[in-house]
Amino acid sequence: MTVSQPRLAPGDALLMVDVQNDFLPGGHLAVSEGDAVIPILNRYLDYFSRKGLPILATRDWHPANHCSFKNQGGPWPEHCVAQTSGAEFPAALNLPESAQIISKATHPDQDAYSGFQGTDLDSLLKSREIRQLFIGGLATDYCVLNTVKDALKLGYTVYLLQDAVRAVNLSPDDGKKALQEMKDLDCRLCNINDLQPRATPSAALYTDLYQLTMMQGYFDQNMNDPAVFEFYVRELPPGRGFLLNAGLEQVLDYLEDLRVASQDLEWMRDCGFFSKNFVDSLKGFRFTGDVHAMPEGTVFFPNEPILRVTAPLPQAQLVETRIINLLQFQVMIASKAARIVLAAPGKTFMDFGLRRSHSIEAGLFAARASYIAGFTGTATIPAGALWDIPLFGTMAHSFILAHDDETQAFENFARSHPENVVFLLDTYDTENAAHKVVDLAPRLKKEGINIRGVRLDSGDLQNHARKVRKILNAGGLDEVKIFASGDLDENKVRDFESCKTPIDGYGIGTRLATSADAPMLNCAYKLQEYAGRPRRKRSEGKSTLPGCKQVYRNFSADHKMTGDTLALDKEDMVGEPLIEAVMRQGKRCRPAVSLGEIRERTAQELNRLPEPLRSLQQDSPYPVEISNTLKKLAESLDRNLEPPQTKS
Amino acid sequence: MTVSQPRLAPGDALLMVDVQNDFLPGGHLAVSEGDAVIPILNRYLDYFSRKGLPILATRDWHPANHCSFKNQGGPWPEHCVAQTSGAEFPAALNLPESAQIISKATHPDQDAYSGFQGTDLDSLLKSREIRQLFIGGLATDYCVLNTVKDALKLGYTVYLLQDAVRAVNLSPDDGKKALQEMKDLDCRLCNINDLQPRATPSAALYTDLYQLTMMQGYFDQNMNDPAVFEFYVRELPPGRGFLLNAGLEQVLDYLEDLRVASQDLEWMRDCGFFSKNFVDSLKGFRFTGDVHAMPEGTVFFPNEPILRVTAPLPQAQLVETRIINLLQFQVMIASKAARIVLAAPGKTFMDFGLRRSHSIEAGLFAARASYIAGFTGTATIPAGALWDIPLFGTMAHSFILAHDDETQAFENFARSHPENVVFLLDTYDTENAAHKVVDLAPRLKKEGINIRGVRLDSGDLQNHARKVRKILNAGGLDEVKIFASGDLDENKVRDFESCKTPIDGYGIGTRLATSADAPMLNCAYKLQEYAGRPRRKRSEGKSTLPGCKQVYRNFSADHKMTGDTLALDKEDMVGEPLIEAVMRQGKRCRPAVSLGEIRERTAQELNRLPEPLRSLQQDSPYPVEISNTLKKLAESLDRNLEPPQTKS
Repeated sequence: MTVSQPRLAPGDALLMVDVQNDFLPGGHLAVSEGDAVIPILNRYLDYFSRKGLPILATRDWHPANHCSFKNQGGPWPEHCVAQTSGAEFPAALNLPESAQIISKATHPDQDAYSGFQGTDLDSLLKSREIRQLFIGGLATDYCVLNTVKDALKLGYTVYLLQDAVRAVNLSPDDGKKALQEMKDLDCRLCNINDLQPRATPSAALYTDLYQLTMMQGYFDQNMNDPAVFEFYVRELPPGRGFLLNAGLEQVLDYLEDLRVASQDLEWMRDCGFFSKNFVDSLKGFRFTGDVHAMPEGTVFFPNEPILRVTAPLPQAQLVETRIINLLQFQVMIASKAARIVLAAPGKTFMDFGLRRSHSIEAGLFAARASYIAGFTGTATIPAGALWDIPLFGTMAHSFILAHDDETQAFENFARSHPENVVFLLDTYDTENAAHKVVDLAPRLKKEGINIRGVRLDSGDLQNHARKVRKILNAGGLDEVKIFASGDLDENKVRDFESCKTPIDGYGIGTRLATSADAPMLNCAYKLQEYAGRPRRKRSEGKSTLPGCKQVYRNFSADHKMTGDTLALDKEDMVGEPLIEAVMRQGKRCRPAVSLGEIRERTAQELNRLPEPLRSLQQDSPYPVEISNTLKKLAESLDRNLEPPQTKS
Repeated sequence: MTVSQPRLAPGDALLMVDVQNDFLPGGHLAVSEGDAVIPILNRYLDYFSRKGLPILATRDWHPANHCSFKNQGGPWPEHCVAQTSGAEFPAALNLPESAQIISKATHPDQDAYSGFQGTDLDSLLKSREIRQLFIGGLATDYCVLNTVKDALKLGYTVYLLQDAVRAVNLSPDDGKKALQEMKDLDCRLCNINDLQPRATPSAALYTDLYQLTMMQGYFDQNMNDPAVFEFYVRELPPGRGFLLNAGLEQVLDYLEDLRVASQDLEWMRDCGFFSKNFVDSLKGFRFTGDVHAMPEGTVFFPNEPILRVTAPLPQAQLVETRIINLLQFQVMIASKAARIVLAAPGKTFMDFGLRRSHSIEAGLFAARASYIAGFTGTATIPAGALWDIPLFGTMAHSFILAHDDETQAFENFARSHPENVVFLLDTYDTENAAHKVVDLAPRLKKEGINIRGVRLDSGDLQNHARKVRKILNAGGLDEVKIFASGDLDENKVRDFESCKTPIDGYGIGTRLATSADAPMLNCAYKLQEYAGRPRRKRSEGKSTLPGCKQVYRNFSADHKMTGDTLALDKEDMVGEPLIEAVMRQGKRCRPAVSLGEIRERTAQELNRLPEPLRSLQQDSPYPVEISNTLKKLAESLDRNLEPPQTKS
């Protein structure tokens, strides 16, 4: 995953102002907390060094009779006298050998607050082509302020290292005022964390803060008993008749790999939300629970759990966010893709969604979920490279546009990819391009190159497809397939099919990979049992069914689904149980199921759908009954566990 | 990124059947292509070895006078006579020392096709607690078939290594039939790629196949001239008045880091789409182009480019997919978040979207984009850990449910997080819980713990907020804030605000992080110039404006935006130019801009919006004019570049 890590560039330099012993606590002109800048400056120094960027340090380098000293009539106590230890840089400051030192106010009767005053700093910087300065040091309200002002005047872009300056504050607001003055002059602000790359948190921290705050609560109360959480979808998206399970293998990968990394522990220690004992307890953290689930590729319905986690409460809690994140997305996409496939059985469907998916992970998983649902393949390379999902791809308009002549573009492309020649026709004029294809075909044929297809990507696709089909057929190119793309979804596909549009395959992108009509599922991962006792949330509109559950499915004589029963796991009901053990004590019970197997299962499942569910409009919902025992358990919990006792 | 990598588990073993010299081409009983299984089996062997899982190999180990030999009246030529080289495992097979060898048919008058027949294989496996066998070797239609059948009969789960078997095929379909027979008996199929983790492709391959096929075309034609691509949004989502730029830093990170890794080259060489010369040319690939862009946090409108890439054509082509992917998402989320912030200025807004975002990257970038737009913070931990975005989080229903008593849950939570006490009220009965909070408050107060707030997450939030406010105030808890969450968006927030609902802060999740009302933007990254010549696509409804462009913005005296002009970059127009150089020759021109700066810029931009654009309903679009020169350029290209010459 790419995360924005700020970076420096050539032309940048670090300029440290007067970080000298005399300005530190204990020195002759101590700045309060002046030493606090040292560890931060060390991080800046390290960072600029590693980037190979110039580092410069100014210093007061006074003669013993300097005019700024009180004994010479000046405002300050004697300080930073050249060659004395007070003028030295503190030992704790990791100034590299290569740093350039700028001594200032070296003459008895000239004072210099700014590092540019009476020095060759400016010409030095210019000779090294520095355009941007990062300035920190001591003190904000004197030498830093004046150095920054001069640098701005001289045309440098200036960043003040806000976390690496401290003020003298003769008047309490001096530092603040200096900061404001610099900002008003267009000085920018920066902190070490804006510059320095941080260790990316591991998957364990890709969760909501409250999972960890609750874990701290469980830790403090020693609440470590087994908890049962179930994932289910509360309701179907509008117009949908069923859902398709997908994403389980990714959940199992996540759980098997789950570790709290050292950088995670470090962040937890520093962030201020957690106790040291709790953070220490997470060292060596592993997921050790059991998982039961419906196989991927199974059709399911609202309120039916597709995944059950049984684990010590804190573990089962931590993984909530990512489990929802993984299952919601693939279920949503697979369910959408299944509708598309059902709209034109037997046609070629290509996933073109990566660019407008909500991330590259989303694009990759959309390719997986749509392939499971019956898509022919995808344009997303890593889906092919990782899982052997068939890859499809032709050319974009830019390829045509980069050529001065459309036919020349076609020709060049065909010679580069003789096995896979599909031309994009709509860059300028679709039918005109189709004629060019007809003209070109014999020439390519002579070279042994057959045109596989053409793609239409804009305009009235139905109309263009008919015209292009005619042109191609008239030119003897009956074999050449017509592919269509551009803002398609299951409804458009069904419309094309219903009027027998001569389209052989569909590239479906954005509306598939974002599940555009329903980009989210009303789904939940809820505590159903803790320490052996069933639990029930009663929130309005969001109440849960308690206990470990199983789904039993019944079929007609011709193998169509006729109805499900949602029951407690220990009940013995009629029907095929759909939930099975897939992980024990943190380890898979079996190797990962191959995509091919899941895809086959899906095909079988879609065949078993009752006919009304196979259409795109939904009137009569599929029957899911709740067993009497389960109903009674829910009611008994309502009566006993938390008697409503409103006081007002 | 987690990608599904199938895994083995203890209880699994690899069983190789009769991979012996005599069964390989050149041997006494050669199986056609029998040697093809060796490299694949070596990969299985390596994989099982590294996993520490048992490996077993059967072998025919016949006496010289074995009954299966023709000279003894049997069906086969003499083969695999014990101690001869024909009975040895081939040298190319990397059988580890630890592998267990099972010799079979060692007696003159007993033949054995199955590895279980007359051997102690079964008891050996049982003693090692093996439950699942992965079986491959020679030959599919004899010894493999019979070993698999016996294993199934004995109760093992069996995977046939489909890519590591070959058949004798005395009749041409024998292998096929054997495969079907095994499948009918419930043998599963597996290929090495189902088991062995692959190297994850690098970011360079997170693109569409056609980018690479076009690059091959450019390579073959030596089309390496500078190309100019621009990214822009074609139209506003329904009901929206403006867009907010976000995601630029991630694009620059991506471009700076772009490399074609060795595993990418390996995949490209093997996948069959590309020529060796082209793949070799990608070694050492870097992005060396220039990027111009609007700063993040800038308000923009349809057809205005927010990013321009100028680079050698193949480079500019490759990056299309990821650039669209990164910019679409953050622009979409930032624009949505800005609407939410404008619906209730000054209120606290927390991003709770990670779980239902379309991936963890989407969740992370949604936290960033919403923070830029003015959100107060997020629940997404890595957004805090990486970028110091303030983190928010309280408790979930599971925390309450895991306790037998709601008050006890509140108390325990408060003691674990005395600085950040926010109670969730709606697990059982919202108002009842509010009374419990009032009762509990004095007890906590004595311990020095102040309650910061309560959260309402279900039911009629307006009604509950009013009742809870009353209960809290009556209990002296005027300071306690009320936070609301649960399926909120800008419209609900505006409704709450318009009737002055006593809600102090909003947790916005799903509808923000998926941009639920508009989960995609009609956006494009289009070639506008190649080799110094402007280009124009004319596709119906998707035509482009050619050339390098700049956006000039004008303001009224009170600093409100009054209108933009879209012009060619070289034109000199009235107004503030919005597009600036951000990358030269593949390197950033300046350090990454801090989130704080971007957020400040956004606040300023939202203040400059004309009043009608700040409301949630949009009637009059913001004026964006196209300069005459640009219009003329477009027209001249239409006339000259590709004269429409329809033939039919």
